[in-house]
Amino acid sequence: MASKEAYERGLQLLRETNGENGLKVLDVLADVSPELGNQVVGWAFGEISARPNLSRRDRQLLNLGMLTALGTEPQLELNINSALNIGLTPEEIVEAFLHALVYCGLPRALNATLAAKKVFAERGLLPVVPGETTTS
Amino acid sequence: MASKEAYERGLQLLRETNGENGLKVLDVLADVSPELGNQVVGWAFGEISARPNLSRRDRQLLNLGMLTALGTEPQLELNINSALNIGLTPEEIVEAFLHALVYCGLPRALNATLAAKKVFAERGLLPVVPGETTTS
Amino acid sequence: MASKEAYERGLQLLRETNGENGLKVLDVLADVSPELGNQVVGWAFGEISARPNLSRRDRQLLNLGMLTALGTEPQLELNINSALNIGLTPEEIVEAFLHALVYCGLPRALNATLAAKKVFAERGLLPVVPGETTTS
Amino acid sequence: MASKEAYERGLQLLRETNGENGLKVLDVLADVSPELGNQVVGWAFGEISARPNLSRRDRQLLNLGMLTALGTEPQLELNINSALNIGLTPEEIVEAFLHALVYCGLPRALNATLAAKKVFAERGLLPVVPGETTTS
Amino acid sequence: MASKEAYERGLQLLRETNGENGLKVLDVLADVSPELGNQVVGWAFGEISARPNLSRRDRQLLNLGMLTALGTEPQLELNINSALNIGLTPEEIVEAFLHALVYCGLPRALNATLAAKKVFAERGLLPVVPGETTTS
Amino acid sequence: MASKEAYERGLQLLRETNGENGLKVLDVLADVSPELGNQVVGWAFGEISARPNLSRRDRQLLNLGMLTALGTEPQLELNINSALNIGLTPEEIVEAFLHALVYCGLPRALNATLAAKKVFAERGLLPVVPGETTTS
Repeated sequence: MASKEAYERGLQLLRETNGENGLKVLDVLADVSPELGNQVVGWAFGEISARPNLSRRDRQLLNLGMLTALGTEPQLELNINSALNIGLTPEEIVEAFLHALVYCGLPRALNATLAAKKVFAERGLLPVVPGETTTS
Repeated sequence: MASKEAYERGLQLLRETNGENGLKVLDVLADVSPELGNQVVGWAFGEISARPNLSRRDRQLLNLGMLTALGTEPQLELNINSALNIGLTPEEIVEAFLHALVYCGLPRALNATLAAKKVFAERGLLPVVPGETTTS
Repeated sequence: MASKEAYERGLQLLRETNGENGLKVLDVLADVSPELGNQVVGWAFGEISARPNLSRRDRQLLNLGMLTALGTEPQLELNINSALNIGLTPEEIVEAFLHALVYCGLPRALNATLAAKKVFAERGLLPVVPGETTTS
Repeated sequence: MASKEAYERGLQLLRETNGENGLKVLDVLADVSPELGNQVVGWAFGEISARPNLSRRDRQLLNLGMLTALGTEPQLELNINSALNIGLTPEEIVEAFLHALVYCGLPRALNATLAAKKVFAERGLLPVVPGETTTS
Repeated sequence: MASKEAYERGLQLLRETNGENGLKVLDVLADVSPELGNQVVGWAFGEISARPNLSRRDRQLLNLGMLTALGTEPQLELNINSALNIGLTPEEIVEAFLHALVYCGLPRALNATLAAKKVFAERGLLPVVPGETTTS
Repeated sequence: MASKEAYERGLQLLRETNGENGLKVLDVLADVSPELGNQVVGWAFGEISARPNLSRRDRQLLNLGMLTALGTEPQLELNINSALNIGLTPEEIVEAFLHALVYCGLPRALNATLAAKKVFAERGLLPVVPGETTTS
């Protein structure tokens, strides 16, 4: 089991990057696999994502790439929300999925872009206006 | 077919990110599928990767994430080389693959790390020394 | 086409492991691809799954592992039901998906666990109570 | 960006193979990633799918195979519609998915067949009647 | 187990499409999993691939698409050989992998093309000369 | 970082299931990503695989299923060795891969079986003799 320190660190990171959505996963898992919830918070966030060497923005870009390749859309939506929360612009996010066209092919790139559209619509971020980007 | 401008732009980008290795793919494809070579240069590099909105570093992180998820190791090696060429440190690269453990699982993360070890060895970059990172 | 013996053997195994849900697949396929229905019954169940050398429980664990890795959720739900029908406990099933975190990564493990939650809810098996396990 | 010629060629091919559904993707992408729409039309259809060397029917068979293997169902439905539009019979399409059982396994083959059932139902093509095939 | 008729039919089809390479798989499996060898011959070839509704060429195109998407290269090489054996031209085969760029992305399309180069070299078919195509 | 207890528990489990091969992974990772080595031992083995609720044999069957589906062969070989070390018979292992034919398709099942042949040959376990199985 993750240490209390790792758990607290993960909880804070989950709150900062995912807001309310992030904590919901713990509620959902509570009556079926609370240990998976512990692993999400204490290990995935508290031990791995909280490490130095790569910034939050770097890790979020990795996530967008990996989840597009895996084609796991519920997690894509969650991570598109996280990407917005930590400061990636809508234009950068759709650019990432356009870039994914090269490596993952059209079906994966299209599904990721449609997931972005859904999230952007929920947050009142449509239409995506070119020129609002702040690249690193 | 890609425009002459896109092809030239792609060729330059391929040279800058992949050096000699990048151009080798054109030689290899010349007698079997020259049009795929054209697509790599004129479309993948010249039209997509050369776009603004995301920096080269951002795109390289996306690539490392996608290729780890796809498990396509020859391309991983090529992209680990590109990542080094554009300024990612060995420590950042192995951190990306450690981060991939969360999303892609151990087999993919381990194979990507072993690909990095192979590339680092060829370039005299072993051992990876903690603390040489320059995160964005 | 599968022999009549294989078909009968498959039909019986399908009934025993999947109950009504198992037979529904034949109805669904009847007007679009009856031969795929024949293959499910006569080949997949009648020839392969009915073989000796591995117990039903063993094969069900393999199925849970493979389907989590493939990320094909409709089949996951069906197989979670089968797993319960042949005697795996809810705790063992969620443990299998927690174990999958190591090999398939968080998105696949999480989606499988949520599929289990849905099936357990339909069968009145929530909350999962630790300590009811009967490992082999 | 694709040339005007490639874009026009792609638009025409998209219309011929996908009808109204094909153009809808452009509307859907217009406010989130118009450049991805450009790539679908100008590159995917206008540059690649419009090439000679393989017939439309050949390319459609490749698509059915690839999409079954990838398990990306929204695109499967779109391509089952295209397959019907360019003259593949319902029986040939379900035969393709039965064939996919060998290479992709039962979950992928079953999901593709259920996608076909959905499309056939929408177009009044159920039940699939054996013997209406016109193989090449 | 497959019927004797299916086994004989499969053996003949395997010989016609794969030549000596096809039969080698039986030798290789003989001391480790002869039943898997039986399934390859009696089921995969004798029951599924030998069915009507799709021509050999159609099935081979499906195979090239599925194997490119799956990224399983040993089987790709075997099927590129089969494709040549049943009359697909080298140009059609590389066109299929160029087409796969759209749906499977560059790493898979590139690896498939390199597998084709290897097979073509072994059979003295390099360079691939444009214009020798006989599309259906 | 994993607790000292988890690390010790993982190291012991790694030794018992993988013997010398298991420890080699730590040496290989030492100069490139020692933290990934820590995660393998302290987290994957020490925290997850060492949990109760499923027996070692159960977890090994899950592993064989997941790795066949993922198609990651270096890890397959390692886990086939582990499977033998914890008491699965060669016949049970090849039966697992024959069973995988249904869910993962022929290319994955065949590659897994060939990996088993390689491991069995190294350990002098060929030919596999039917009837030596001890199913649970």
